Order: sequence, then structure tokens, then C-alpha cells
Amino acid sequence: MTLRIAALASGAGSNVAAILRCIADGRLNARMRLVVSNRPDAPVLDKARNADIAVWARSHKDFPDRDSFDRAMFAAISEAGADTVVLAGYMRLLSPDFVRAFAGRILNIHPAILPSFPGLHGGEDALNYGVRLTGPTVHFVDERMDNGPVIIQAAVPVSSTDNEDSLMPRIHAMEHRIFPQALQWLAEDRLRIEGRRVRLMPGKPGAPLVSTGISTGVSTGASTGNGPLGPWMVCPPLENF
Amino acid sequence: MTLRIAALASGAGSNVAAILRCIADGRLNARMRLVVSNRPDAPVLDKARNADIAVWARSHKDFPDRDSFDRAMFAAISEAGADTVVLAGYMRLLSPDFVRAFAGRILNIHPAILPSFPGLHGGEDALNYGVRLTGPTVHFVDERMDNGPVIIQAAVPVSSTDNEDSLMPRIHAMEHRIFPQALQWLAEDRLRIEGRRVRLMPGKPGAPLVSTGISTGVSTGASTGNGPLGPWMVCPPLENF
Repeated sequence: MTLRIAALASGAGSNVAAILRCIADGRLNARMRLVVSNRPDAPVLDKARNADIAVWARSHKDFPDRDSFDRAMFAAISEAGADTVVLAGYMRLLSPDFVRAFAGRILNIHPAILPSFPGLHGGEDALNYGVRLTGPTVHFVDERMDNGPVIIQAAVPVSSTDNEDSLMPRIHAMEHRIFPQALQWLAEDRLRIEGRRVRLMPGKPGAPLVSTGISTGVSTGASTGNGPLGPWMVCPPLENF
Repeated sequence: MTLRIAALASGAGSNVAAILRCIADGRLNARMRLVVSNRPDAPVLDKARNADIAVWARSHKDFPDRDSFDRAMFAAISEAGADTVVLAGYMRLLSPDFVRAFAGRILNIHPAILPSFPGLHGGEDALNYGVRLTGPTVHFVDERMDNGPVIIQAAVPVSSTDNEDSLMPRIHAMEHRIFPQALQWLAEDRLRIEGRRVRLMPGKPGAPLVSTGISTGVSTGASTGNGPLGPWMVCPPLENF
């Protein structure tokens, strides 16, 4: 089933761009119906306009409270015909009503291996803690921040001399693979939420099973590879991303 | 410098056994001077006795408080001539005095990618949360539980059908490699604590740089491999373990 996506973003929108690329090259069965931002000057909006995608940009400061902003956003998303909400660096909590309206159809990406380093600074917080492994998580959204059932996680190494400038591109490179992958699994109706765990159902026979691009190894349990930015590991294994 | 290790354990002691194997085969420059347990029936004690290693086994219940137990333990460790304390499944907090007495010389292994899932049930808690990546952490011990600077971390995949019986052997297999590796780096005086981060200094020229055994890939940033129990990733890279 083709996903009809509304992407919510507050910043550069590199994940929105990655999703658009995967739609364009036929790997992700989706249409981007709307790009939403609570920051009318967010660079993601120009990316959307350049791709001829409808935008809805309103400052949350122009609304009396979270509920009223989220209601207006919900109306715009409904009007655009979107059935799936993608949080791609959306730096606000969603109201419970909004989350319930899209139950099981809202995905978020977070730059750390949740439940480590929830919140707005997952990359920086991991560095400051001194972890040796970190990487992004895609999860279903529930009413608590960075809390819902995990769909896919990736790990990259952190060296003792890394700073944000050296580490974040490694994390972003994995975000741009696992987020489209998670969405494609949703499009294929292969994700089952069982309590806190997410089961990935088998794909159709004949569907692609081997990672493309810079991946160098695939197993039943995880993809591992060694790309231009270094080694990485992803579970469940990437299929076509 | 040859480490003189006192190992503290409350249970089976599989990490003690792994350390003893690495000492025996010459990869870990250390002597096991004492095995300590707060559970006089802990299986680790038989492993130690069978290897002709001195043991100190006292129930903490026979002492009025933590400080008095830890003082008696400290006396036994000092008497045994140990300079390095290894927590290998030691299920008690250490008193601040004990931690200070061995500052920078106490290492702990935890079955989760800290700071995720601290506490006594790191493996089970990760399963119940629904993570897709987990694995052990070796860290210096400070006065807070599972909190000190991280030396090395490993990740293994978690499938949606894993249970403790299927997951824990994967975690333990990585524990048995990264704990001896961390100790060997300590023996080579290559670990520098810089705030919360641990810097690994370069090894001597000519020292082994490639993982042995089931490792299949090594890079500057991490070791990755695909062993009998599945894929894994370790940072910093394993050298000879």
C-alpha cells in the first residue's frame, strides 16, 4: 500500500530529502503529500518547495497552546490526504489527541540508541557521556518523548577524539538508510506491534534481500558494513537501503 | 606491567574463566591473585579452586554493614597483593572508600550498552524494552552504579523472537572478548581517563593489531564480525581477543 506521508520537521530536513530520494528511485512505495514545520524559516521548507511538495508552515508561537497548534496541523495533514506521519527532526512533543489520531502511523527518528540519550540532544549527549557505540533509532511514537516501540536501530563507533562535526555525519548517514527502510516495511504492512516489541514479518518471495550500496555484509540477524564513514551495524537487516 | 587481579563475582564466573583462559594462553599479561565472592556457594569459587587460585568467600550477611564487609574484603585483597579489581558479575555496590582505594584500577562489565539499562537486569531489561541492538560495556568504576568512564562497548542484534536463553549467550560471548581486551590495555598502560571519556593510546609497533578467531573485519573505528552466534560490533577495535 502506497504511504501518503506528511513529514514534520523543524530544521534542515536531511531525512526528508533522503525519503524523497528513495521515493524517486522506486525503493520506497510512498508519496510525500505535505511537509510541515513549526518554524517558517526552516530550510526543510525550501527543499519541499523545490520538489513541488505542499508545505504547511506556522510558528507554534502564533497559537495559544500545544493543542490548538496540533489541531491546526492535524487539519492540514488530513486535508492533504496523508495517512502516515514522519517526524524528521521535529523538535516538539505532540499532543495526546494528535498521537491517538495517527496511532501506529507515526514514526520518529532519534540520533541515539534508545533508551540512551532521549531528548533534544541525543548526539551531543552521547559524546559527552563517553559512549563507544551510538547510532539512530526509528520507533513508533506514543505519548511520551522518544519512548514508543523500536522498529530498527543502527550502531556506529565513537572514537575518543570525535566531536559533533566528526560524529554526526556518521549518524546521519545511517538515519538516511534506516528511516526509508522502516517506512518501506510499513508500506509493505510487515510491522506488528506486540507490546513493546515490533515484529518484522517476512517479505514476499522474490523481494530484494540484500543491502545495496556500501553494505558489505548481511546476515540473518543484522546488516554490517564498512562505508566511507566507517563501520556500522543495523538490526533488523537492511533489505534494499 | 603484569596486572595482579582480584576478581569479585557473585555467580557463575564465566568472565573469570574467560580471563583465566586469556592469561593461560599468553594474551593477557596478568596473574589472578584472588577470587572474592559475597556468596560462599557461588559456582565461581569452584572454578577458582580448581585452578589453584586463592579464594575469599564471606557472606555479606555476616557483617553489620557494607563498610565493614568492604573493609574486610579490602584487607584480603591487599594481603593477596592484588593491584587491580575486576567486577565480574559482582552484584553489590562498593563503598566509596573501597572505590577510592583502587581509583582507576577497578573495572566492571555490564551486559547492556550503558547508559541504557543500568542495574542488576541489563539483559532482561533490554529485551523487555524491545531494543534491536544491545551488548556489553566495560567501564571504570566510580561511586555510582554502572556509571564510570566507558572503555569498550559491543553490540549484537536482538530479534523480535529472542528470549533470555537465546540472547544472553550472544552477550556473554562478547563479554568474554572485551573484558580481557580492556584488561590487557590496562596492563599495557594505554588507557587515559579524560573527564568522562577514555582515550586508548597507540600500542607498541609490532604489537598484534588484527582480531583473532571468529572476527571477520577490522577497521580503524571498530571490529565487526559474524561468529557462530551471529554478527557483532566492538569499539575500540579488538586487537588480539
